[in-house]
Amino acid sequence: MDGSQDALSLVLFSGTDDKLTAAAVLAVGAAAMERKVDILLQYWALDAFRADRILKDHGVAPEAGPEGAAIVQRHGGQHWSETLRQAKAIGDVAIHACSLSMEVLGLARDDLDLLVDDVEGVAAFMAEATGPLTFI
Amino acid sequence: MDGSQDALSLVLFSGTDDKLTAAAVLAVGAAAMERKVDILLQYWALDAFRADRILKDHGVAPEAGPEGAAIVQRHGGQHWSETLRQAKAIGDVAIHACSLSMEVLGLARDDLDLLVDDVEGVAAFMAEATGPLTFI
Amino acid sequence: MDGSQDALSLVLFSGTDDKLTAAAVLAVGAAAMERKVDILLQYWALDAFRADRILKDHGVAPEAGPEGAAIVQRHGGQHWSETLRQAKAIGDVAIHACSLSMEVLGLARDDLDLLVDDVEGVAAFMAEATGPLTFI
Repeated sequence: MDGSQDALSLVLFSGTDDKLTAAAVLAVGAAAMERKVDILLQYWALDAFRADRILKDHGVAPEAGPEGAAIVQRHGGQHWSETLRQAKAIGDVAIHACSLSMEVLGLARDDLDLLVDDVEGVAAFMAEATGPLTFI
Repeated sequence: MDGSQDALSLVLFSGTDDKLTAAAVLAVGAAAMERKVDILLQYWALDAFRADRILKDHGVAPEAGPEGAAIVQRHGGQHWSETLRQAKAIGDVAIHACSLSMEVLGLARDDLDLLVDDVEGVAAFMAEATGPLTFI
Repeated sequence: MDGSQDALSLVLFSGTDDKLTAAAVLAVGAAAMERKVDILLQYWALDAFRADRILKDHGVAPEAGPEGAAIVQRHGGQHWSETLRQAKAIGDVAIHACSLSMEVLGLARDDLDLLVDDVEGVAAFMAEATGPLTFI
């Protein structure tokens, strides 16, 4: 398979646990198919990768309502950070922090979980991540 | 036209009526252009396809505010489920329920509207849906 | 570079300042790489381009919370409309208002900022915007 043709390039913006779980499942699915995966973390998704709170409750999309939130929490299941760890173990998966979002949120490299590989700008990401962009 | 090249692969996550309408319009547009369309329903989008409430009010994005919600409701127009029915009638459009989301929400196949063709995992969807992923 | 192959086709749905900033940065990055960029404005993103309020506060994603909203506002930085103006100055960037959303929101062409090039339907957009769709 031609990796560059089938690369999955995810721009993660949202930081709720339901969306991050959906994103992680797409990433591990693509990694299992030997597709290259590049992930850019922006805004609230980046905030969710802070080392001191990655495993904390990040809520769910507002539309879930209290009932939906309770259903997701009750289900439990594997945490999205663990799914991403698996994706990195089985495939070519890189996770980048967006430099502009780092600046907006006032974060330094050391504030982030070790899942994050580096900090880069959008232009560098777009040059490196050769697949179509999927914004989540 | 090469269907596999131009396939539209939609991952629907949000279940509000405004986003589902936007998604349905993209699907019917692609179907009319003879593009293959695959739709994967996750979380709140899946919940919106429950047979007993597909036509009920699913709200709009929170940012709409009360004024925006009222404007959308006043406009009326064709329901997104009817637009998807048309898309399926004119083109090669398949709607899949994500098996993981089925489990999280505690849903069985019989709980879903007949617009849904089958239940499948993300890996199967990614193998079948050959187009770039659009997450809505 | 083959422009049609690498075109960036953004469907903007959300109208909060954080998402519009993320979208504008992707657009200017692609324009700088000489990629063709087509943007379709729907619903709340379209509403944000009203001439009389484009520079007003459009809020941030609900998940930001009051703390996140304050952080974004404190940061300041270049407004997304200015970033889009730059993108149009340096590259082949077209901004289209979705005709269906114009009708839903009761807007006329004159209500919109001059950044918007024209009003068109989804079918026309999909015919013109040859790149994979990124929904924001």
